[in-house]
Amino acid sequence: MTIVSLLSDFGEKDGFTGIMKGVIWSIAPQVQIADLTHEIEPQNICQGAIVLSNAFPYFPNGSIHIAVVDPGVGTGRRAIAIHTADQFFIGPDNGIFSLVLQQAEDRGFTLESVELDRPAFWLPNVSRSFHGRDIFAPVAAHLANGRKLSELGTPIQDLVRIQVPIPVRTDDGWQGEIIAIDHFGNLITNLTEQHILSRQSARLKVGEMTVTGISQTFGNRAAGDLVAIIDSSNQLSIAVVNGSAANRIKAKVGDAVRLVDTQLAERKTHAS
Amino acid sequence: MTIVSLLSDFGEKDGFTGIMKGVIWSIAPQVQIADLTHEIEPQNICQGAIVLSNAFPYFPNGSIHIAVVDPGVGTGRRAIAIHTADQFFIGPDNGIFSLVLQQAEDRGFTLESVELDRPAFWLPNVSRSFHGRDIFAPVAAHLANGRKLSELGTPIQDLVRIQVPIPVRTDDGWQGEIIAIDHFGNLITNLTEQHILSRQSARLKVGEMTVTGISQTFGNRAAGDLVAIIDSSNQLSIAVVNGSAANRIKAKVGDAVRLVDTQLAERKTHAS
Amino acid sequence: MTIVSLLSDFGEKDGFTGIMKGVIWSIAPQVQIADLTHEIEPQNICQGAIVLSNAFPYFPNGSIHIAVVDPGVGTGRRAIAIHTADQFFIGPDNGIFSLVLQQAEDRGFTLESVELDRPAFWLPNVSRSFHGRDIFAPVAAHLANGRKLSELGTPIQDLVRIQVPIPVRTDDGWQGEIIAIDHFGNLITNLTEQHILSRQSARLKVGEMTVTGISQTFGNRAAGDLVAIIDSSNQLSIAVVNGSAANRIKAKVGDAVRLVDTQLAERKTHAS
Repeated sequence: MTIVSLLSDFGEKDGFTGIMKGVIWSIAPQVQIADLTHEIEPQNICQGAIVLSNAFPYFPNGSIHIAVVDPGVGTGRRAIAIHTADQFFIGPDNGIFSLVLQQAEDRGFTLESVELDRPAFWLPNVSRSFHGRDIFAPVAAHLANGRKLSELGTPIQDLVRIQVPIPVRTDDGWQGEIIAIDHFGNLITNLTEQHILSRQSARLKVGEMTVTGISQTFGNRAAGDLVAIIDSSNQLSIAVVNGSAANRIKAKVGDAVRLVDTQLAERKTHAS
Repeated sequence: MTIVSLLSDFGEKDGFTGIMKGVIWSIAPQVQIADLTHEIEPQNICQGAIVLSNAFPYFPNGSIHIAVVDPGVGTGRRAIAIHTADQFFIGPDNGIFSLVLQQAEDRGFTLESVELDRPAFWLPNVSRSFHGRDIFAPVAAHLANGRKLSELGTPIQDLVRIQVPIPVRTDDGWQGEIIAIDHFGNLITNLTEQHILSRQSARLKVGEMTVTGISQTFGNRAAGDLVAIIDSSNQLSIAVVNGSAANRIKAKVGDAVRLVDTQLAERKTHAS
Repeated sequence: MTIVSLLSDFGEKDGFTGIMKGVIWSIAPQVQIADLTHEIEPQNICQGAIVLSNAFPYFPNGSIHIAVVDPGVGTGRRAIAIHTADQFFIGPDNGIFSLVLQQAEDRGFTLESVELDRPAFWLPNVSRSFHGRDIFAPVAAHLANGRKLSELGTPIQDLVRIQVPIPVRTDDGWQGEIIAIDHFGNLITNLTEQHILSRQSARLKVGEMTVTGISQTFGNRAAGDLVAIIDSSNQLSIAVVNGSAANRIKAKVGDAVRLVDTQLAERKTHAS
């Protein structure tokens, strides 16, 4: 049984995501459909890319992921489908699959991609503003029914990529930034375990605040404590135990986060 | 495999919609269930009618749509089921199916409708405030199991209809109104392509604002532009490219929207 | 076909719940999955316990309910699975199943429970902050595939329970409290039909407000009326017809609600 996941910035109130399910089931009634999220901020391609890349590795081989954060809908931007990492990805060619591609390449997977240019696999009438319904959903259903990627479009190579910010080396550690704020108000950074020299001697600086040490878990600290932690996606995050770090620190996506290792800082002082 | 869709004003936090799924699967474990939306404004029957009528045509023949925006629950208002347009509709007889019925009639479909008055197809205990769980969900499941509409209730003819506002002819065009504001802040009007004489010479007036011309798509205009567009449901909408028209214009549902054609306006000036 | 329900405080925006579905379907592709809610207030175990106990009786026998409101994740708190009332429950041992257990005991069901301590049934890498993905989802899938509870963990007896407040007898009735506020702004109390001597002579006092009589239904009262009603979960609730009692009264969870019976009050006056 094939799984189709849906990610978008459509919200829940207008029925758009239910319509996509109706289209999919009209063509491929046997598929299971899971919503990843429809609460991506309107037009925030980078946020969509992050959520998708954290989620897809947990789906079975052969799953089909539709991602629609699509400010360019109705313009010349291409509609694409990709096969990599044993899964399929369908959506606009605007960079929303950048992190999926990077992760697949890091893991050594090959990549097949096509531009969706065969109207035979779309709804009969294609609107200029809702390709999720008119192109992506029917193409996903045909893929679930066993069509090959090469039947659905023309091979392409040069997919659009967006740059997700990468941490920069400093004298005493790394400078990263906040790339997301989750539902709990945790500040997710682009720093990971590999940037940490020692959990004990690490200090994390955001705005005026400094967090000392990386905790193993939220649960063994007192409620209200500000902690740094490696989260479930292996990213260094700043959290308030049973509270919201975003409320406490008033930080936002894009704010700088400095990871300082006191051992490095001391060595530097000794050297100078 | 039968599809059941759910639309309500229940929100997501209380588990009401999950309960309805439990009831349906207890009777008909083989059905697929899709949420259309549960974010209809509390008691806003008209909004529910609009979302439902935009969505149902995209579902496969034989689908069953439960719609529960039900301020009259527990009073004498009837519970009904309808078969038209090759699909089924279950909910309160309060007008929520008005636009479905109108669309089905426009397309020449016949209509069969019954009052749900056979407790054998309901849960054993029927509350006075949650017929979605106690009547509509089990009736949908029995329908999915192959029961005929005529088994589930007594035929009726005179279904309640609500009037959705219709545009009015003016000297220089049409006067319509805003009937919905979507998740992106787009202002959806009751004007459609058929009211437009020419995309180029059309002007749209909402409050103090005037939009000139109807754009083909959001994407070929600059971010921040205020544009008029034919949306994916064929309705004339006012949008801000990569932004929210509702925030920009401070308009609300029910506000007048005047569609003026400058050619008509000129002719009138010449004639006078 | 087995049903798995999901309840959490994860919200919808980060894709966490979609990830859990991916994990479940990777192991048990045949299951149906229903979201109960993911809008439990962060870390509010009591609210999760209430929603779960209202919902589970409507699911078919053999259903599996995963509940993840888990402030102690990553500490020594146990992960557990329970079989009672012909259904299965999986989550942290922090009291979230207290009301399920109480209801099952009241209805005379036996109870089997295990500590989930067999990593063979988990994901290979277990994070310290997302056991919903790494432990609960895969265990639910193995259960759906026919594994016995006794294979998944070691029997335990002493499950953590939380106390949900119980109404207290007063001279002229009962003192209860608001235990939840639903999506419509209805104030749900811990008083039930059994605390009411007479629907006519009952008065309900919240803060400065008094509601006289218990209505049969919202619908036969005028819009805007403040009413007391027995809701669909058999709990005494305070509502505003077609409005929000929470907005009108400015009440919050935990506020006292006094149920006074004027007959009792008169008897007392006569006696004194």
